[in-house]
Formats: sequence, structure tokens, C-alpha cells
Amino acid sequence: MKHMKWWGWGEEGISFRHDDKPAFAAFVKAVIDIDVARAPASMPDLDSFPIPSSFVPRELRESLQAVVGAGNLKDDPLERVVHAYGKGLRDLVRIRRGDMGRLPDLVVYPSSESEVAGIVKAALSANAVVIPFGGGTNISRSLEAPRHERRPVISIDMGRMSSVLEIDEVSRLARVQAGALGPDVERHLNEKSWTLGHFPDSFNHSTLGGWIATRSCGMQSDKYGDIADLTRAVRVVTPTGVLVTRPVPSASTGPSVREMILGSEGRLGIITEATVHIHRVPQKRQIYGYLFPDWSRGLRAMTAIAESDASPSVTRVSDANETRFYFATKKHETLAGRAKTAISKFYLERIKRFDVHRMCLSFIGYEGSEEHVKIQKRLVDDIVGRHGGFCVGTEPGELYDQKKFDTPYIRDFLLDRGALADVSETSAPWSQLEYLYDGVMSRASKAFAQIGVRGYIMCHLAHSYHSGACLYFTFAFRPSDDNHSLEQYDVIKSAIQQGFIDLGGTLSHHHAVGLEHAAWLGQDISPVGVTMIRSLLDGVDPGHNFNPGKIVG
Amino acid sequence: MKHMKWWGWGEEGISFRHDDKPAFAAFVKAVIDIDVARAPASMPDLDSFPIPSSFVPRELRESLQAVVGAGNLKDDPLERVVHAYGKGLRDLVRIRRGDMGRLPDLVVYPSSESEVAGIVKAALSANAVVIPFGGGTNISRSLEAPRHERRPVISIDMGRMSSVLEIDEVSRLARVQAGALGPDVERHLNEKSWTLGHFPDSFNHSTLGGWIATRSCGMQSDKYGDIADLTRAVRVVTPTGVLVTRPVPSASTGPSVREMILGSEGRLGIITEATVHIHRVPQKRQIYGYLFPDWSRGLRAMTAIAESDASPSVTRVSDANETRFYFATKKHETLAGRAKTAISKFYLERIKRFDVHRMCLSFIGYEGSEEHVKIQKRLVDDIVGRHGGFCVGTEPGELYDQKKFDTPYIRDFLLDRGALADVSETSAPWSQLEYLYDGVMSRASKAFAQIGVRGYIMCHLAHSYHSGACLYFTFAFRPSDDNHSLEQYDVIKSAIQQGFIDLGGTLSHHHAVGLEHAAWLGQDISPVGVTMIRSLLDGVDPGHNFNPGKIVG
Repeated sequence: MKHMKWWGWGEEGISFRHDDKPAFAAFVKAVIDIDVARAPASMPDLDSFPIPSSFVPRELRESLQAVVGAGNLKDDPLERVVHAYGKGLRDLVRIRRGDMGRLPDLVVYPSSESEVAGIVKAALSANAVVIPFGGGTNISRSLEAPRHERRPVISIDMGRMSSVLEIDEVSRLARVQAGALGPDVERHLNEKSWTLGHFPDSFNHSTLGGWIATRSCGMQSDKYGDIADLTRAVRVVTPTGVLVTRPVPSASTGPSVREMILGSEGRLGIITEATVHIHRVPQKRQIYGYLFPDWSRGLRAMTAIAESDASPSVTRVSDANETRFYFATKKHETLAGRAKTAISKFYLERIKRFDVHRMCLSFIGYEGSEEHVKIQKRLVDDIVGRHGGFCVGTEPGELYDQKKFDTPYIRDFLLDRGALADVSETSAPWSQLEYLYDGVMSRASKAFAQIGVRGYIMCHLAHSYHSGACLYFTFAFRPSDDNHSLEQYDVIKSAIQQGFIDLGGTLSHHHAVGLEHAAWLGQDISPVGVTMIRSLLDGVDPGHNFNPGKIVG
Repeated sequence: MKHMKWWGWGEEGISFRHDDKPAFAAFVKAVIDIDVARAPASMPDLDSFPIPSSFVPRELRESLQAVVGAGNLKDDPLERVVHAYGKGLRDLVRIRRGDMGRLPDLVVYPSSESEVAGIVKAALSANAVVIPFGGGTNISRSLEAPRHERRPVISIDMGRMSSVLEIDEVSRLARVQAGALGPDVERHLNEKSWTLGHFPDSFNHSTLGGWIATRSCGMQSDKYGDIADLTRAVRVVTPTGVLVTRPVPSASTGPSVREMILGSEGRLGIITEATVHIHRVPQKRQIYGYLFPDWSRGLRAMTAIAESDASPSVTRVSDANETRFYFATKKHETLAGRAKTAISKFYLERIKRFDVHRMCLSFIGYEGSEEHVKIQKRLVDDIVGRHGGFCVGTEPGELYDQKKFDTPYIRDFLLDRGALADVSETSAPWSQLEYLYDGVMSRASKAFAQIGVRGYIMCHLAHSYHSGACLYFTFAFRPSDDNHSLEQYDVIKSAIQQGFIDLGGTLSHHHAVGLEHAAWLGQDISPVGVTMIRSLLDGVDPGHNFNPGKIVG
């Protein structure tokens, strides 16, 4: 089983490079005072860290071995470290320091639902803790065991359960095992001209089970729906047996147990498979770039598009800061490209009279038949035009489409050079978005000032719904005190999160609760809401054996 | 507060009439052997029934009176009887016999959330049972107290809380009190050119709170979504305080407490208000009639429409039996109308070579701009044509649209004349629909034979989703033994419900669980699913004071 780097995102050997992006170094120097030419910190050697020994009672180990076979039980340091955390900024900072928290004692790799059931049975008999592990991309601290957990901790890696089991071509449904990574799912489906259409930033390294357990959302979710919409049925090994729901399109049996599993973060059981919507690969799929004169008009255009008869597959608009970032990551241009850029600049500044420091880049995607795409784009172009924007063709959109999964590599590149960068996202009604945005930006500025750093924060709107949208913030700064970098990070992150809550947003649009956002849960869904979730979790798992501490303590 | 007839559907003075429908009498005689000319049973006098006296401890009555005022506490027989049951066939049969079950002791009419909270507090102090009551249209026995309940039973009628509190025109959201009836909601919204777009058959007599508590679905839900999609936020008085969720478009905090309230049937608390999607009244709204040569081709056309770039607001196709029923309820025609009918018949039989006994009537609706409606209809017409069907214009659709809320009056008309008629609906994946339909029809036939009656069962597909649709069955028969009519009804109804479960459907698409469907819950969502629901309900309401016995016992 191949895992991501224990100390960073993605595969060994793949990293972000800046030397082919002429504007990048100056931009980073200007906004967060980082010299990208500086030699990156060298990665520590895992062997140099003290790894507490693994403790698994003999009887439990034997039971587990009987279930999955000796070859599918692992307790070497690398396996345990890889399964200790997700890939949040906090996780990477901690792990690079050798602060691994409470490592799992054992990693088990089941190959079937009955093996998962066997693992759960053995674990419950021994009063052990089980934590499901998909691709390990979580950034909300949903994967770590409680630091002072005294019971044996078992990480259940679902990686061997990665098959597309069945395709119902008439109903446009596929039955897929929970451990299937994004590329596994798409490859199998694409072979038969189908697609799931779920493309979160983590796509290459995250799994179907993980998406469901954290209520994930993908880039084309405007068309395909988020994972909550896509997931028609689940099978879950719970403390009291296997939950099996039916792949019906809609049902009035409430409270819905299918919905209880969405976002349950392993606390109600181990998801083993799901039946999900699939779609025919569309005849045409295009993402166009648009420019708006400013953020307000970009937001208002998105509000209008969501009310119109158009139904684009992607709606996204960056604020001025993120637009600057986008242009700062452009590659070296050919002579022809440079000429084109000069002409574009002239057009923007002299003809359209755009202020290039305020303008906002937007991406809008269309899918369907040739004709459908044409009709949809015409409807959208009209709305964009009424809000002072215009289409800049498919080139920026294609670039975005190619590079969309690379952002976490930039985060690691910056971390290697001493800067902390992270994301925080929310959703709110259309009427609140600009107010929320202004408030969060101002709180972030104050927080940067408080810790005495020059920080940068940028934002885009993504995922339009009937009544609102997601605002996705990315921030970065160079800590003024490397010995307290996480404390400084907490000041920024908390200011942003508290801003979401105070200004009408939710604590997270698609990154779940985990431990990272749990402090805001009561303010988001009210204390009674927390009580309701606790009633459900405690009722199903009275011993707190399933990923204890997440969502509610 | 105006209520429906205690012994039937709708308003006093409104009923179905057959004398303007020339084909109706012969049709009913042929299919269920009922002579519509026969004098209907006379309605019993409520005073002739023994009404057990109301028992409310003095302290509880005084507390409730302090909360809502003496004028808003009712315990006269009519009030108690009206709040005893919903309007299922079983309810009407029982109430007409004087079998009122466990009548509520008291009906209270709060005017605000704080009054609801006061009622709940007083009720919990006295260990009383509370049952929320919206319009009383429920057909799944979600409104009745357990027959042997020894604690005081209080029905909380939400009728005074019927306002649209706030419209957010930018976010296209409205905050509406739970007791608002369908027409209340639409009237207030329409005044400002908005619509909720939720039109269940019960629309005229059901409430927003009731829709949420039973996961209701409306006729145009293909476009507007069902109530689960429409409801962005809820406020609910629970045993432990007021649950307040935020009207955000999407959130990854799971398990979602908003979703737990959907379909909770009063077991988690009393819904006081919700924030719901609203839409601008569309420029154009049209429902077209279509004819298909047979049911199979009608189903396949709907499957294809759901995959296409078209997104109609209504998709519906009746089987041959329901198509016959539809034509049997047509009114007297003018001479011109009769000529047109003769020409249509000639066209159908001679030109299109349709077998009029197998053909299926369909309704497909479109909403949006003039242009959007035109494009959508063209896409749909192509698909219909490829499946052997054709458009028959807007006339049948307009008639359907006008008459859509009248079906329950026909049920009462038949009941007055000795026939039992009821509905049962499910949803299933596209690939299962024809198989499920065939199986249910054959089980119903066997069940009719078993009780020795000539029964009729008909069906339509409604509510298309990506992966499947709802099949809605209506059945009627004249019991062969009037002393055991409900037992005979149970034979038919159970055969149909068991068919749903055995053949891949869910126990109900939009009529909730209540007591009526509870027997099938474990087979639908697996025994573990039942355990999960029970954990939640017992955790939130350990004393079983909130509508006890519904969903799970």
C-alpha cells in the first residue's frame, strides 16, 4: 500500500517548483516576506525521533491476525507515523517536530466487509479504539487518537478495499468500496464512459469512505452535487452490526440513518461501501475564465447566475488578492504569449478601464451536449456582462483544471521555507457573503497585526447553491517566533473561524469538524444540537471505541 | 381555527360529484362493483358517540393556561376528536365507527415559540405526552396517542403560528412559522412575486411544520426539491431546549441535526419555524400532456429524460389503469369537444396504432423564461418521440393542474358508498421500477383474490431523480365483509408494502413512517438502522414524552 509522504502532501519526488514562474518569488517576498531562494529546511530522519513502543494485548493481536492474516497487521514506526495524523498544517508542523501525539499501536488492512466486522468484534472484546483511515488527507484532526488514550489504538486502513463492485447502467448507480481513491474510482468508471464527478482538492489521495465520513464537496459539485447528494446508500460496520441502507432515490423514513452516516467521521462505525450516482462522461466539458472589475460585482453575478435558468458545473470567483496570487504563479511565457499579455493588459486598463489591483478572476464551467453548453454559456455571459465582467476564453480555465490538485504542494513548499499556510472555508446565504468576507478579512488583518507579522489572506467563492455559496479563504504568514509558530497559527485560524460564526457562516463547508473545529460546534448548531449529536453517538457507541473525541468530546 | 371535517377530508360543504362526469358511474361499477347512484351512508352524529372524559391534572392545566391563556386551551369533544387522528383511510373508517382511540385530553394553541417552550416545560414537569398537530392530513398514523397511554395527552395545534416572518430577497430564503398552511405560505409569498414551490396533494390543509416532520414532497419537486432540500434551517423546541440551526446553503458538520429533524414526526421536539428556499414566480409555467403506447415505454422515456440536459419541473406518467381512471373522470363535453375526442380517438387508433387499453397518459411540466421552456420542451419531446409517445397539448395538463388537490374527496365519496380506497407509494432505482411495478400489481391481485373482492389498483410514476423515481399506487375495493373491512384493507395494504420491501423499494417515498409503516422499518433500513434511530430518540427524549411510539416503538 502506497502512502503519502509522512512529513508532507503527496508522493515522494513530487513538489512545487517556482523557477519556471517568474513572478512568484517577488510576490511571496512582498506579501509574506519569504525568500524562496533560501534553502529549504532539511527533512528530519524518522529514525531520529523516539517512537513509543506499540502496545497490543496478545489476545487482541491474535484475534486480528486470525481475521486479516499476519501480513496485513503492521506496527513498524513508519506505518504507525503515517496513520497518526491527517495532512493539516498543524499535523505537518507537529510531525516534522517529532510530536506524533498518540500513535496507533497497530495498523490493520482488511480486504472485505466481513474482515472489518471481525476487526471491530475483536477490538470491542478487548475494549480497543478503532479509527478508520482512508487516504489520510483530512485537515480537521479527525484521524488522531486522543493524546492520553490508554486503550490499544487500531488504525483500520481501508486501502485494500478499493474496487468498483457493480455498475447499474440503467439507474446510473455504482457500488464502490469505501477505500477506493479518487483516481481508482474514475479510472474504473471512465473505462465504461461513466464518471462520479466528485473532485475535491484532495482527489488524488482521498477515498470514497473518507468523503462520506467528512461530507466532502468537489469542484464540479454545482452539477454533480456534493457527496451527501451523490451517496444513495451505505454499508457500515457499527458497534451493533452492519448497517445496510437501500439505494433508493429518496425516502421519507426519518430521521434518516443514511444521513447520520454523512459526516460521522468514524464515530458511528466503519463505512465499507457506498452506492453512488454516476453520470455519462459529458459530450462537452469546458471551463471558461472571466474577469470582473471588482469582488462585489463578481459576487453579485454569481448570485444572479444561481437564480437563472443556467446551471453551470463550476462557479468560482477569486477576490483581488487571490487573482494576484493566480497571476504570480503563471509560467514563463513565449514571445507570442508575452505579446498577448501586453495586448490584454492594454485592453483591460485602457478599453475596459479595469483597475488591475481590484479585478477578480473567475472560472465558470459547463458540461453537457454541444448545444447545451452553448445555451448555458450564453445565459451566463449575459449575466456576467450585466455585472461589468467579460469572458477571457478557455486558456485560464484549462490551466486551472490542470493545476487544481497542486495547491497542497505549494503549502509544503512554503512550510519548507518557514511560512505557515492553511485554508478555512465556510458557507453563508448570498445576502451575508460580502459582509462576512469583509469581516473575516478585517479580523485576519488584526490577527496578523496582533502577532506582529505581515500576513496574506485571499479568498474565492466556490460552490453556488440556490440560497448561498461557499467562501474559501487561504492564508499564509511567516511566524515572528518560530518557537511559538503553532500558537501564532492558532491566533489567525481562530480569528477566521470565529469570524465565520459571528458573521452568519458555518464552521466548515466541506472539511468536517474533527477536533480542529469542535470548539465552534455549539455556536454553529446551538448547544441543543450538540446534545442531539452526543445522544446519537453515545447511544450507538456507549464505550467510545469508535474514533473517540471527534465532533463532540 | 378552522379544521377539516372530523369524519373526512377537506372543508364542510365541499365534496366530489360524479353527475357531471358521464363515464364515471359505469367505470366504478365495472372495476369495484360500486353503484354510485346508491344513497351514501349518512354521517353519524358526533354526539351519539361516547366520548371518554378528558383528564388533565389541575396543576398542569393551570400551568398551560398561564402560558397560552384560557381561550387557547380546548377540551370539548369536537376539538379532541379532530385532533385524535390524521386523515388516513384507517382513520376515517375508525372515526366513523366511533373508535377514536386515545383522544387527547387537551388541545393547546400556542402563538409563539416561547409559548411552545412553556407548554413543553409544563408538560415535562407533569410527565405528560405532547403531540404536535399541523393541518392533520397525515395518513401514516403519526398523530394518534398510544391507545393505552395513561399520562395526560396534549395536542399542540400550531395553527396560530402561521406567518411568513421574513423574506431575504437576495438569498431567496423565507423564514416561516411552522403552522403556516400551504395557501398561507403561497399567498404571502406570491404578494411579493415569490413562491415556495411545494405542492403536495395535501397542500390546502397541511403545514410547513408537518411537511418537515414527515419529509414531504410536492408535485413540482423535480424543480424545487422536496422539503428536505428546501429547508435550510429549523428552530425546534426539544426536551432540552431550543434547537437553532443556521440557514447556510451547505455544511460539513455531521451528523447533521437539521437532517435529524426531517421526518422526525414530533419525536425530537416541536418545530416552530423554518427558513426555506423561495423562488421568483417563473415567467412561464406549463404542464403538457403526453401519450405513450404502453407503460414500459413511458418508464423508459422518464429514465432518459432524467439523464438528459432537460430539467422539467414535473415528470409523471400513469399506467394504463390510471389512464383509464383519468378518462373516466372527464366532464361532459360540448359538441365541439365530442367531435375533437372522436378525431383524437381516430388518430390514436388508426394513425398512431395505439391500443387504447394499454396507452399511458403522462404530464410533463416546464418552468422558467419563455426561451428556457421552449428549449426544455424540445429536448423532452425528442425523447418522448424516440419512445413512441407524443405530446397532446396543454389541455389535459391544465385540467390536472386544477384538479390535483381533489383526489382525497374522491376517496371520501367512495367510502360514503362502501368502498375503501387508499394510496401507497415507494421509490426505487430506475432499473427496478418495472420489476417492482409488476410484482406489486401481481401481489395486489392475489390479495384481492384472497379476500374475495374485485379490486382495482393503478399507479403513476412521479418525481424523477438522477437514479430512480417514485411509484405511487392507488387501490380501491368493496369489502366482501363490512364487519371486517379494516382487516381486509390490511391484507391489501400489507401485500403492497411487503412488495415494496421485497422488490427493492423503500417503505414510503413521502408519507413517513408513523405507526402505519413501522412494521417494515427494520426490513428497509436494516435492524441496525432501527437501533440507530432509537438511540437518537431515546437519548433526546428519555421519558418518551414526545409523540411516543411513532417511527420506532
